Formats: sequence, structure tokens, C-alpha cells
Amino acid sequence: MTAAAFPQAIRRVRALGHEGLADFLIDDGRIAAVLPAGGAPADLPTLADGEGRLMLQPALVEAHIHFDKTLWGAPWRPNSSGPTRNHRIANEQAVLKDFDMPLAERAAPLIEHCVARGSLYFRSHVDVQPAFGIARIEEMLALRERYAHLVDMQLVAFPQAGLLTAPGTAELMEHALALGLEGGGGIDPAGIDRDPVRHLEAVFELAARFGRGVDIHLHDGGELGRFEVERIADMTEAHGLAGQVVISHAYALGAFAPADLHPLADRLARLGISVMSCAPSHFMAPPLAMLRSRGVNVCSGSDNVRDTWSPHGNGDMLDRARLIAMRFGWSQDEQLADAFDIVSHGGAKALGLGGRYGLQAGCEANLLLLPAQNIAEAVVACPQDRTVIRRGRVVARGGVLVTR
Amino acid sequence: MTAAAFPQAIRRVRALGHEGLADFLIDDGRIAAVLPAGGAPADLPTLADGEGRLMLQPALVEAHIHFDKTLWGAPWRPNSSGPTRNHRIANEQAVLKDFDMPLAERAAPLIEHCVARGSLYFRSHVDVQPAFGIARIEEMLALRERYAHLVDMQLVAFPQAGLLTAPGTAELMEHALALGLEGGGGIDPAGIDRDPVRHLEAVFELAARFGRGVDIHLHDGGELGRFEVERIADMTEAHGLAGQVVISHAYALGAFAPADLHPLADRLARLGISVMSCAPSHFMAPPLAMLRSRGVNVCSGSDNVRDTWSPHGNGDMLDRARLIAMRFGWSQDEQLADAFDIVSHGGAKALGLGGRYGLQAGCEANLLLLPAQNIAEAVVACPQDRTVIRRGRVVARGGVLVTR
Repeated sequence: MTAAAFPQAIRRVRALGHEGLADFLIDDGRIAAVLPAGGAPADLPTLADGEGRLMLQPALVEAHIHFDKTLWGAPWRPNSSGPTRNHRIANEQAVLKDFDMPLAERAAPLIEHCVARGSLYFRSHVDVQPAFGIARIEEMLALRERYAHLVDMQLVAFPQAGLLTAPGTAELMEHALALGLEGGGGIDPAGIDRDPVRHLEAVFELAARFGRGVDIHLHDGGELGRFEVERIADMTEAHGLAGQVVISHAYALGAFAPADLHPLADRLARLGISVMSCAPSHFMAPPLAMLRSRGVNVCSGSDNVRDTWSPHGNGDMLDRARLIAMRFGWSQDEQLADAFDIVSHGGAKALGLGGRYGLQAGCEANLLLLPAQNIAEAVVACPQDRTVIRRGRVVARGGVLVTR
Repeated sequence: MTAAAFPQAIRRVRALGHEGLADFLIDDGRIAAVLPAGGAPADLPTLADGEGRLMLQPALVEAHIHFDKTLWGAPWRPNSSGPTRNHRIANEQAVLKDFDMPLAERAAPLIEHCVARGSLYFRSHVDVQPAFGIARIEEMLALRERYAHLVDMQLVAFPQAGLLTAPGTAELMEHALALGLEGGGGIDPAGIDRDPVRHLEAVFELAARFGRGVDIHLHDGGELGRFEVERIADMTEAHGLAGQVVISHAYALGAFAPADLHPLADRLARLGISVMSCAPSHFMAPPLAMLRSRGVNVCSGSDNVRDTWSPHGNGDMLDRARLIAMRFGWSQDEQLADAFDIVSHGGAKALGLGGRYGLQAGCEANLLLLPAQNIAEAVVACPQDRTVIRRGRVVARGGVLVTR
């Protein structure tokens, strides 16, 4: 499905920065103009009549998900993982190695569900581990191709079981990037690979060689995790990867008084290193308000969605904004707007979407319409009745995917 | 609306403790029998055809809400409260004193929303403070009367601004219980009233005199809060109120290693003192799993729902079960069932519903039907498509209230 090539109108929506209701002119899948309601010519085809509903920033951004792990499309499977990260890695290998439903059948319904909830831009981590071989990577590439008409998806090569310690992983990572994955991943340089500097050197060297960005899962806590954040900043600088690095989770930053982290936050901001947080309620979470106040870009994601790691997660980034706000006790309208910014513009910046993303003329007409008086209400109420527009076509209505 | 007086059948539902699908015979608003699917006579009127959906414990129990505070039915109002509890109390008085929408218009749509989400039993705290006078109490009694056809609601007289420190409150509390409110409330005996023992003596003396239970808001933290929990146990014993006392919030219990609290938990269990927790993600929360493992009854509630205290809250006790599970990292099916038990049987026990509440013959036919394979999936997925049955009548379908 290519973009609709003829001019159309979205009529009578509330939109940020516009007094009263607005009309949007859409042409060739992009926003052509924004006018006061009634300004769009009456003879233009109507793409959607907002009837006063809220038009949100161009769709939601899912900046951290693991489509390849999900059991979304499978019958309910009780969680069987042990208490530690290493248990969970081994458990996942055992469960998924011979799972009788292929990746595409598990993940495709989740992608469609996410779209119906209003996410159109994704970053999915793809497990790169010898236990799964190249097949996993090829399956995700095929799935991305299958859904190219519906979503923009970046893939990150993710060495879940370790990069140095799981023999054969480094070669697979290289293979994955050669196949076109956009990002080089890493995981707990100390906690899993037991050699923080060699791990980070391997990740950054590989990414720089392929001209790709970096996205590192960092669960290591306390002083250890903070040290690793500092070393990630060093390597970002050394490899000239400013603006292309994301630290995912960064639980460690939740272990300190926020003010103690100001110098580190300022450095992350200078280097354009984004922090991705799901704002977990049962772990420490990085101090997102402080990070943003120092200029650090913050994005978020669903992470595990009903997989062998966790039965939770629902792929709804508006619900994620609500969870973020609740996690930090954000109650003022400005704070609720901050939570929304994290799941929209923050994600767009982390994914490098640049000028494509916005409500101004020239941006992609990837839009979300829902019944709310303003962003604050949208975040706390999470209405399920959502109309999702991608490149000038309605792809979901009433929270349900429009099938062709 | 009285109970439907003629026999009816609910057909083909999944129900706990029953192999395969089951039929329920309903008569005079109660469960008359549970049979294997196909067992209900074909000529009985069909109250609902489950088509394999899950039938949950008799509806959800909202054990802690403040209907009188909500702005649910009003246009969006940005949160304007200051950072402390005393700021919030003063802010609420200022906002609500002359609010141009009466309590009933704000609260009625929230009650209906809660019912459509599957809650049929409620405990609502009613502010008793001279700033609002007797009018607030009378309005809540009138609202309860208006919805008596739809919900069972207990009211607790709640001295929000202090019992000893706000002159005239003690007399209003007495007036409220004389008018028929079921519970005597208290709040932060040290933190607000600055005299923990006199506060608790006043609360317990009043409740005992009227033969009512006690429900105390306890936000006081750390050692202070633990001391107050101990004194509440003392007074429960002294006044013979075992089984009739709830401690709401009890944040203090989250400040200690759970094992250090075993003796105190055992005492709460012996005295039948329930702990109500919303499992807040930005505060300390009592260790619910430990409390339950020691035999303490745990219930939950929505607490503030879009009021001057907080814009959050949605009156959905199944979503609350999900938040509880996420808050404590509960991932196993048994743990997800625990979260559900808290918002159902735990609430029923705290509210003293006794043998009325259950899926066995003789219990009230207050039931919730939704599309889920099992309780674990119901908790993580929180389906919005809910059929709610009260005393043999369908009161909500597809998550929407059935209007007469």
C-alpha cells in the first residue's frame, strides 16, 4: 500500500498549537497545510472527520520492543522462568527453540495490535544468539517486509546471551548488520559478558564499521551500571557516534540522588545519547524528569510483551505514557504532556526520524485521532477508540485494524 | 430494579473450579446451581450465552474509593495541588467548596462507569469536615439510594482534615454515623492530628459505640507508621472489633524487610485486620505477598479518581489487579491469580460480604463475563468487552452500561 496520491482533508480536529478546531490538508501521504476548521475546500475527499476529537503528534513511537520473542498469537502459556536473568535466557532458549508456532504467527498479530493502538514507528530488538542462528534474523526481516505497507520498523541486532561469552555471536552480529539491520545492540557489558570494556569495544567497533547506531540493554545496577554509562559516553565520543546511541533501561541511574547525576546527564545530552525507559514499577527507574530537564532525550517502549520473560505488556504506548506518569507521580498537565512527549517526539528523536515527524506541513501524515479534551486527558484516560492514519490512509478505526 | 424472580440460565462459560464449560442456573437473583455445559434445561430463558468466555468471581470489589471527591463528570480541570498532603487538603476545600457542578453530577457517571467495568460492591469514603458540613454526607446518602438498584455501597465517615485538629469534626462524625454510614474512618493519627493515641481512641470509641467497623487512612511512614499499625491492633483488640478493621494504604509497611514484619503481620491476621493497598508505583507499598502468606487479608481500590488530588485513576478494578501485579513483578499464573483475588475475594472479606460472595449455589448472581482463557490472561489483558450481571439482570454489555 503506497501513500494516497490525491489531496484529501481531515476536518474538525483539536490539534496542539492551533486555536479552536483545525482542518488538515493531506497530499501524497504528507501534511500539506493546516487551516482553521472550515478552511479545507468542501469538495476535497474527507479522509476523516474528527468531530472535535484530539489529533495527536504523528502517531506513537514504540522505541523498544521484542517482536521476535512474543507469544502474543499463541495460546496462553504460564510463565515458567526462574528468578534470575540467566534463568530467563536459558528458559527462553528452551521454550522457543522448538516452539510449534513460527515467529511470524506469534508476532504478526502483535504488530497489528500495536498499529491499532496508534504506534506506527518501531524499534524492535532481534535476538542474535547461536541457539537461534540466522533463521531468527531472516524471519524478522521477512516480517518487516510483510508489514512495510503499515509500519516503519528499525531492527537492532541484540546479543541476548552475551557477545563475548556465547561463541559464534560476534560473527552472527556481523552477519545481521550485513543483512541490513539498522542497529548494533549490546547487553550488560559487565553483568553478562563480564568484561565491560571489551564488550563495549566490540559493539561500538562493529556499529562504526557498518555505519550504524548503537542500542545497549543496561540492567546492571548501582555504581557498576553508572560506570558503564560513563564508558558508553566515552565510546560514543571516540567513535563519532553522537546522536546515534540509546541506552535502554539504565536502571542504575535510579540508584542515585538525581542531583548527583547532573554532570553525567549533561554529558549524555551533549553527546545526544538517548535513554529508553519503560518506567518499571517494581525496579528502580532512571530519573526521567531530571534527565529531560538537563536536555537528555528520553524515549520509551513496551519491551517484553507476553513472552517467556513476562506475561505483561500490551503494546499500547499511550498506556505506557500513563504508566510513566503514575510511576513518577506526575499529576500536573505539563507533566502528563511530558509523559506523552516521551512516547512520541522522544521516540522520534531516538529513532532519528528528524523532520518527517510532526504536525506541520511537510511531515508524514501518520496521525492518531482519539476522543479526549487535551493531551493530559488522553494520557490518564487512554481511550481505546482510536483512528490511526498512515500516509494519508486510515489503517485503524475504533481501535480495530482496517483490513484490506 | 429488584432481582429477576424467575429462573434463568447462563450458558457455556468457563468458571473456576469447573472442568470444561459450565451452565449456571440463576433464580431470584442468586446462583441456584452450577452444571456442566448443556445441563441447563433448554426451555429456560437465557440470561447470557458465554460462548466460552470466562466467568469471574462474582463481580469486582472496589474497596476504597472517594466518589464525593471526583471531578469525573466535569470538564477537564488541570491539577492545581501543591506538593504536600496539607496543600492538597486546602486545595480541595478551595476547589470543591463552590464548584459549579453538584456532587451527584460529578459522581454518578463514575459510579456507572465502575459498574460497566465490573465492580458491583463498593466502599466509598465520605469527607466529614466542617468545610463541607452535613450536606456532603446527605448528598452521598442520596446518591447511594439512587443507585441502590445497581450497586451495594458502604460509606465510611472520613475525617480528611483531621478529627482532633479541625473543630466540629467529631460532632459531624457522630452525626454521620447516626445517619447510617457504615464505617468510622480515621487519618494519619500522628501526621495530621499530631496525637496518635487520642486520635485512635476517638475513632475506635465512636465506632464501637455505634457498632460499626473502622477504616483508617494511614500514610504516615517508617517507624511512625509501624507504631500506629501496632496501636490500631491494640485498639482493635481492646474494643472487640476483630474482623471489622481495615488499614488503608499502610505505606509504612513498605519501609521494612518483609521478614521483620512477620510478628506484626501474624497479629493483623489473628485480629482479622485487612490491609487496603492501591499498590502505588511512586510510593512505598506494603509487601502484599508476604502479608497474604501470613494470612492477612488484602484488598484494593481505585482511591482518587480524577479529583483535585490526582488526575489518575479509572475505577477499573481489573486494571488495578494488573497494576498490583506489575508493581510487585508478579509474573507466574498463581501470582496473577493472587492479584485478582485481592480485587475480588479480598475486597469481599474486608467489606464483610460473607457467604453472599462466590460462584457456588446460594451466592448473589453478581457476575462478570469477559473474553479470556483464564484469570492470568484476564489480569494482564484487561479486556474492555465485559458483560456484567447483577442479581440475575444484565446491567452492562460490551463494557457499556445497559440503560433502562
